[in-house]
Amino acid sequence: MTETILAAARSVAAQGTTVLGLTPTIGPASVENHVEAILSATGVLSAVREYTADPTRAPVDAWILAGYGDQGKEALMELVDVPVVDITEAAAVAAMAIGDRYAVVTTLDRTVPMIRERLAAAGVAARCASVRGTGLGVLELEEDATSTDRAILARADEALAQGAEVICLGCAGMAGRAGELSSRLGAPVVDGVAAAVGQAESLVRQGLGTSRVGTYAPRSPKPLAGFGEFEVE
Amino acid sequence: MTETILAAARSVAAQGTTVLGLTPTIGPASVENHVEAILSATGVLSAVREYTADPTRAPVDAWILAGYGDQGKEALMELVDVPVVDITEAAAVAAMAIGDRYAVVTTLDRTVPMIRERLAAAGVAARCASVRGTGLGVLELEEDATSTDRAILARADEALAQGAEVICLGCAGMAGRAGELSSRLGAPVVDGVAAAVGQAESLVRQGLGTSRVGTYAPRSPKPLAGFGEFEVE
Amino acid sequence: MTETILAAARSVAAQGTTVLGLTPTIGPASVENHVEAILSATGVLSAVREYTADPTRAPVDAWILAGYGDQGKEALMELVDVPVVDITEAAAVAAMAIGDRYAVVTTLDRTVPMIRERLAAAGVAARCASVRGTGLGVLELEEDATSTDRAILARADEALAQGAEVICLGCAGMAGRAGELSSRLGAPVVDGVAAAVGQAESLVRQGLGTSRVGTYAPRSPKPLAGFGEFEVE
Amino acid sequence: MTETILAAARSVAAQGTTVLGLTPTIGPASVENHVEAILSATGVLSAVREYTADPTRAPVDAWILAGYGDQGKEALMELVDVPVVDITEAAAVAAMAIGDRYAVVTTLDRTVPMIRERLAAAGVAARCASVRGTGLGVLELEEDATSTDRAILARADEALAQGAEVICLGCAGMAGRAGELSSRLGAPVVDGVAAAVGQAESLVRQGLGTSRVGTYAPRSPKPLAGFGEFEVE
Amino acid sequence: MTETILAAARSVAAQGTTVLGLTPTIGPASVENHVEAILSATGVLSAVREYTADPTRAPVDAWILAGYGDQGKEALMELVDVPVVDITEAAAVAAMAIGDRYAVVTTLDRTVPMIRERLAAAGVAARCASVRGTGLGVLELEEDATSTDRAILARADEALAQGAEVICLGCAGMAGRAGELSSRLGAPVVDGVAAAVGQAESLVRQGLGTSRVGTYAPRSPKPLAGFGEFEVE
Amino acid sequence: MTETILAAARSVAAQGTTVLGLTPTIGPASVENHVEAILSATGVLSAVREYTADPTRAPVDAWILAGYGDQGKEALMELVDVPVVDITEAAAVAAMAIGDRYAVVTTLDRTVPMIRERLAAAGVAARCASVRGTGLGVLELEEDATSTDRAILARADEALAQGAEVICLGCAGMAGRAGELSSRLGAPVVDGVAAAVGQAESLVRQGLGTSRVGTYAPRSPKPLAGFGEFEVE
Repeated sequence: MTETILAAARSVAAQGTTVLGLTPTIGPASVENHVEAILSATGVLSAVREYTADPTRAPVDAWILAGYGDQGKEALMELVDVPVVDITEAAAVAAMAIGDRYAVVTTLDRTVPMIRERLAAAGVAARCASVRGTGLGVLELEEDATSTDRAILARADEALAQGAEVICLGCAGMAGRAGELSSRLGAPVVDGVAAAVGQAESLVRQGLGTSRVGTYAPRSPKPLAGFGEFEVE
Repeated sequence: MTETILAAARSVAAQGTTVLGLTPTIGPASVENHVEAILSATGVLSAVREYTADPTRAPVDAWILAGYGDQGKEALMELVDVPVVDITEAAAVAAMAIGDRYAVVTTLDRTVPMIRERLAAAGVAARCASVRGTGLGVLELEEDATSTDRAILARADEALAQGAEVICLGCAGMAGRAGELSSRLGAPVVDGVAAAVGQAESLVRQGLGTSRVGTYAPRSPKPLAGFGEFEVE
Repeated sequence: MTETILAAARSVAAQGTTVLGLTPTIGPASVENHVEAILSATGVLSAVREYTADPTRAPVDAWILAGYGDQGKEALMELVDVPVVDITEAAAVAAMAIGDRYAVVTTLDRTVPMIRERLAAAGVAARCASVRGTGLGVLELEEDATSTDRAILARADEALAQGAEVICLGCAGMAGRAGELSSRLGAPVVDGVAAAVGQAESLVRQGLGTSRVGTYAPRSPKPLAGFGEFEVE
Repeated sequence: MTETILAAARSVAAQGTTVLGLTPTIGPASVENHVEAILSATGVLSAVREYTADPTRAPVDAWILAGYGDQGKEALMELVDVPVVDITEAAAVAAMAIGDRYAVVTTLDRTVPMIRERLAAAGVAARCASVRGTGLGVLELEEDATSTDRAILARADEALAQGAEVICLGCAGMAGRAGELSSRLGAPVVDGVAAAVGQAESLVRQGLGTSRVGTYAPRSPKPLAGFGEFEVE
Repeated sequence: MTETILAAARSVAAQGTTVLGLTPTIGPASVENHVEAILSATGVLSAVREYTADPTRAPVDAWILAGYGDQGKEALMELVDVPVVDITEAAAVAAMAIGDRYAVVTTLDRTVPMIRERLAAAGVAARCASVRGTGLGVLELEEDATSTDRAILARADEALAQGAEVICLGCAGMAGRAGELSSRLGAPVVDGVAAAVGQAESLVRQGLGTSRVGTYAPRSPKPLAGFGEFEVE
Repeated sequence: MTETILAAARSVAAQGTTVLGLTPTIGPASVENHVEAILSATGVLSAVREYTADPTRAPVDAWILAGYGDQGKEALMELVDVPVVDITEAAAVAAMAIGDRYAVVTTLDRTVPMIRERLAAAGVAARCASVRGTGLGVLELEEDATSTDRAILARADEALAQGAEVICLGCAGMAGRAGELSSRLGAPVVDGVAAAVGQAESLVRQGLGTSRVGTYAPRSPKPLAGFGEFEVE
């Protein structure tokens, strides 16, 4: 799945942009519930911390969190100096630019409230018409592309019938399908990974980074038992 | 601080209720930023998982998350079979029962958005007049009770002047001070820990547990690299 | 119906809690429209006033308003010195603790806007998925338990299908049915009366009473033609 | 005060409109808290019921509720066949027609949440910038017109400074002062009584009456102990 | 269509009110998309400017914008000295006075978001249950009254079934049909043109005009290339 | 000012992106009220229409509306085949990516409601802490850079003190100042023009265009008296 995501990201990257993939070594293979979301966030923080602490790794200009829903974006904003982009938000933002209301078509129904909450927390829920589950698990998406596409299109058609004008693919595992699904649907389909690449590039070119005057101010030293890697000096 | 929290909880517990304290062995000593929130949630899940897996430990009827803001309540709801009560929500609910609007007085200003977001996610923000920081870190609260009380009262007075009618103490470390602060303020002061005890007891007596038909449905098996303790069978 | 309500309340009361029933002598037998709501509120105020003025009656630590919708909670908060708990609010609060979104299943369709408005006024509407009527009048509920349960379950199933995870029984006359309905539905069902008992006990143990610094400040003397019983001295 | 209100109403009535005053014989002389609001609503219902049952009284085409806040509008909509207009709503509606945001300047601070809640329930709160109390009781308003005007203008100036563009006089007892206050303030001042007359006339001319298909459907027969006058046949 | 609109307006006008029709000479014959909305607004401004600059034309006490959706109301409020009334807002306001929630039944589905947005901007969306399109173009409305009525009633019935209690006719071209449609529907039907006449008369009688202290303050001189007619001196 | 805007845009454009400037030949030199907004929108439509109809002009991949507030974005989305980006929205989106809440600092106070409304309509207002005016007209901005910067920084400091973490420059005429103002303020400052360039590039690379299934469906033929240039065939 990381390869699929990277391919989708690279296909829209500007000239001069290098897209690297980093898969956490700890945490779940996919995020479909709240326990997995917490563990995934810990895995993400750990992987990023290790990367940034390694002088042999190429410096990174922005990080993209390629998981739909909440995977610790706010914490990562504290951890790194460069912008952090979340595909859930980026997809919503792209969708709002090209239509009146958008809908998200995602995996299991149980993730619907997680995504809805994430959109609300991100401040981009006002024009979200609905979030709909296909009933497919993240890891099932790639098993049978035909039935996956069919399930996504069925939910997307329902969403359009009820007033959505743009569809966001609510899982990084759906990356790369946007173009074909859009053709079949007759309406724009947004892939969050692709949307995030553009937002990251834009923030970097503008020279913008996370504000340090409020909730993302530098952390103070504090013992973090069992997580010494995240301590500040 | 755990002792302070336990004393506050026990002072309001019904006859027959036993209050136990469980402090995670991993994670930060206090939560004042988003990185610490993630690590704390992981520590909480780990401590609860270990406790419930230990047949020598007394069974628990409900868990109280004694941290203001987000410390993984939703994940814990998936992990355990019994109700989970969050002090942020419980304090808000008690405050709304006894006045028109409430305000939260908390520690560092940087935690204000975290608490505001938690109240919104919990669906209890509509009558929140404001969340205000005292500028005191969690671990500073116990250093000098006099100046801590003075800082809390100053923010509380401001909140009342702008229309709040009840004050919630926005940190478990303030537990036990509600009575005295209320006398000095002339308005009710709610301690989230005490409020949570009553909510937990009430849910238990009603025989209510987390709904398993939606977002908190049982998790499916999945490899959780590095977190095998949380795998389901 | 008062007996049904009392039995439901007592079944969840903590050790040491005595639950008394007080039925207003004036006002409608049930509340299903706005005229009845006003008259019921007047009846409630009158019954409580008479009770509290009678030195032979046992002192009361908290009042529970066992009517869904608006029956004068705010006025009662001014009238008495102890906490006042509303079953509409208490049910919502319990429901929000154990699931993502809740729905209310109530009696006549015409009461739906009244309940929706009450939830909004109480500040607990953000996670209300829907309020649904069964078409049954309050006084019909006890006539045929089988068909009543069937009607409630039909609406509850619809609510779950559209994303609710917890059901609140939207009428005190449904008290006592929560357990069985929950078993049949496969999702938690909250009885507002039971929920209110726990909230009342909790407020009493916390020593919390209505804030007197704002809208519930002590009333000033004023002639209340025809309602002299409510005059303050 | 009834005379003041009537004069204000008549000064804006259309040719052919007769404005009658009806003061309830039971209930408080003014409404400044929730107990008084309930009693006032009962008094209003009673007075209107008596009026409409009296064949010697002139038929009425519309009723205006000349009290700011909640005085039983919804119940009155069920009781009578003709439109019911509330001055709180009517003032807001007029204000929204002539500026971006409006503010309400009212009597005691304790009534601020009551008015805010009424505006929300009426669905006209979105453009309300603030509701501000002058600290004056309803019955004090007429005592010293100079200081009353000064208090109103002070609050109005504050409201304008914070973005309001129109001021609503938040008490029927302020009726008749709008013109002069507007001149001194340099911004429009809306008197709810005057606004309500126009709304009532308009509804009557359009032939519109309360919808009977939902929450205001005809009431069913039911014993109303102590309030037999309100029973339907 | 102007004749239909004028007839509807005159049928509800108060004694002494003269209703004049003014059709812009530039702009689209109807407004069904955003391009037409902008051009229509320009046409409206131009027609009003020309009218007010012509000393031979009768002075006007208030302007009514007889187009559903956005046709430049805010700009017209700056251009003229007298009140400006928008039929979209006026219909909503009348509907809210006589029922709990209202729905709008309009022409093409594509105008639904435009009307929804207008209601939100006007601050009257909180009690809007839905906006529904009939699929009929504005200019088709008059072609076949029978099928037009049937299409409107079908959408209205759906709206009532989902909780609306009052229907607003979402197009000035439907003016004059409210009475008959209401009879057939069994629920009130509001014609925005008729509602606007009453609101305009009311504002005029109250002596209220647009506030000039905020966003509608007098414009400053500025070259308006190609639109010199709108320049201020 | 067009030069300033172009320089700001080019400074952040990706390699391979050409930024062209197009200034409408009709309409106001700046937009500071609602009349000017309508005329500006007409001017924008006209200029774009003329450009796209001219086979000698270079094809354009996306249009950026470099005016804060509403200048006809929705109409332009109907007129052209490629994406349309609005600087008001783009700035908000960039700001939300790098902080909790943002504030907009703009020109005249009278434009504050226009911008607030635009943010709401665009669905990006939830995390807007405030919109503040400097009292400077658009055309005054370039007169004295020192006092302009001072005025912007004063409003920005106020915004930060009240909880904003990022500042958006609320006027295209402020383009190019973001970097220096950010240094002096100690918090990120977003220039909408720069933000819009990145959003436009991103949409183009993703192959996304305006959805044609709903409110932005192709227009039907209709006579547009006086605006024949906008007629479709």
